[in-house]
Amino acid sequence: MSELRQNIITRDWVIIAPERANRPCELVNGYRQGLDLPQHREDCPFCLGNELNTGQETFRLSDDRGWRVRTVLNKYPALSHLGEISHKGQGTQRSLSGVGIHEVIIEHPRHNLTTALMELDDIANILKTYRQRYQTIKQDPRIEAIVIFKNHGHGAGTSLEHPHSQLAATPVVPGQFRYRISEAIRYFDDTGECVFCRNLNDELTSQERIILADDHFVAFIPFAALSPFHIWIFPRRHSSCFDHISPEEILSLAKILKTVLAKLYYGLGNPDYNYVIRSQPSKQDQTPYFHWYLAIVPRLNQTAGFELGSGMFINPSLPEANANYLRSTELPLEHQKC
Amino acid sequence: MSELRQNIITRDWVIIAPERANRPCELVNGYRQGLDLPQHREDCPFCLGNELNTGQETFRLSDDRGWRVRTVLNKYPALSHLGEISHKGQGTQRSLSGVGIHEVIIEHPRHNLTTALMELDDIANILKTYRQRYQTIKQDPRIEAIVIFKNHGHGAGTSLEHPHSQLAATPVVPGQFRYRISEAIRYFDDTGECVFCRNLNDELTSQERIILADDHFVAFIPFAALSPFHIWIFPRRHSSCFDHISPEEILSLAKILKTVLAKLYYGLGNPDYNYVIRSQPSKQDQTPYFHWYLAIVPRLNQTAGFELGSGMFINPSLPEANANYLRSTELPLEHQKC
Repeated sequence: MSELRQNIITRDWVIIAPERANRPCELVNGYRQGLDLPQHREDCPFCLGNELNTGQETFRLSDDRGWRVRTVLNKYPALSHLGEISHKGQGTQRSLSGVGIHEVIIEHPRHNLTTALMELDDIANILKTYRQRYQTIKQDPRIEAIVIFKNHGHGAGTSLEHPHSQLAATPVVPGQFRYRISEAIRYFDDTGECVFCRNLNDELTSQERIILADDHFVAFIPFAALSPFHIWIFPRRHSSCFDHISPEEILSLAKILKTVLAKLYYGLGNPDYNYVIRSQPSKQDQTPYFHWYLAIVPRLNQTAGFELGSGMFINPSLPEANANYLRSTELPLEHQKC
Repeated sequence: MSELRQNIITRDWVIIAPERANRPCELVNGYRQGLDLPQHREDCPFCLGNELNTGQETFRLSDDRGWRVRTVLNKYPALSHLGEISHKGQGTQRSLSGVGIHEVIIEHPRHNLTTALMELDDIANILKTYRQRYQTIKQDPRIEAIVIFKNHGHGAGTSLEHPHSQLAATPVVPGQFRYRISEAIRYFDDTGECVFCRNLNDELTSQERIILADDHFVAFIPFAALSPFHIWIFPRRHSSCFDHISPEEILSLAKILKTVLAKLYYGLGNPDYNYVIRSQPSKQDQTPYFHWYLAIVPRLNQTAGFELGSGMFINPSLPEANANYLRSTELPLEHQKC
């Protein structure tokens, strides 16, 4: 019989179907992105030498080799960086001008790379860039929330080969943020604890779902994982805002993220995935109840009418088996160096 | 510039990007399901004559031609119809036995049909079956919510060709239900009105997003449609529970549903879609604040990291343009009869 598990962060229930578990290989729909592609493409606006073909540059991180990471305005933005917020309301029809920020983070000058195969320094550079953009954009008085995310592969919603991630900053606090924060406040009121810290402690005690950990970060499969190989990376230090990440924590996160993504790459054949940094609304200071983290969602199965109609997910795998599989996935020698 | 619109039912914001609108043809990723397939397949458990190959039959609707609709237990159920609910809890890890109902509704004896191409009577039979199953299953004391849904096409999560839909009954009230109900109660407290009735009135006044309507039902594109050609079909009569639908309303809904799905079929080249009937928790009686409806979500674009990380959607089309396109989509002569 399957089991329903409650995601303690969102209070949503997930149906875990164990009779379909322990079969990670059957779940793989990945494709080999990266090494089959050329190192450089003349027609790729994100490649070295084609800097004039992107949207306006907002930041670059360079060393003696030239730029390592660039951020540019998205040429097809969902939200426009110009203009003021104006509300309109008529009966049940409420709207707002589409003001905000939509940037692309070009993660590397080279065309055919993916995070799992990058050097540690490269990944640390990307994370430093995320922090810089977060810190800068949160100063904009129009901005209420900042979402940093990556779409890897067609099945995860990208059509561009060149390694990149995105930042979208919205002029409203998304309902999902409000809902999660209100649940976190309720838990804090009831227990005096941060629900994320409590969850992390429980995971470290049981060890069953831990993938790997160091002094600063812990990567694990959530107890109520929404889908196969859904992964959370939590900072051990309680902090509500991603942009408060320290230089030492950046190096640690780079290493954990690289190893986890390499385990997906080698263990599951480079599946499509999204990752997202979940931080609190950008106008809030540190709070005792919210805790930022990074979530990775491989796109190994499909949501359908049941998920649409209930908001509940069916996970056809067992979180403990997924964690065990990734723990025992060995990386090639060149990856073990880091 | 894009526009943010608030979904008045969920209070979620949607980014509407008009610069990408008025291009419905570019959105089409559909495939021609149905007529290319054989009328009957020996190896299809849902085909006439193969009744012994399905899960246990729970209901059948017959006429002098034999069965027209059958419902059977899902052979690979997400929730088991046997057993009792038992709660487990340890720290932040809360779980529940996977008890519930998971049925398949075999919509027609013929293998190569799709709702858009069925006779009106066939569709009315499917809706009568939905009502019968809903009324029966809500008597089960273990059940808190009933979700009736259809996955049409690979992109919408089905791998079976034979026309079918599903019913899943859960032993918890999904968080999404609780959230929507609490918003509906708040609106009712503030205004003394059902927010769905108010929304329907506003749509009928403006007419901009109406696709078609009759005495009992109205099909329209929501003001804050989540995705291209997202469609709501609302009953005009205030009722919280789908299973209170009257025989006359069933005939009306069959006609509206057939016409809307035929407009998608001919206008957009038979896109993949999900539909779902949204009713209130099954243990509640009629309330003045909740209103059942049917939602159709064609799978014309993909969600990615932004939607995951914010719960907000980006709709690259204009709801008014989508409604206008469907209003002016003409159906072949044989469809205009109904």
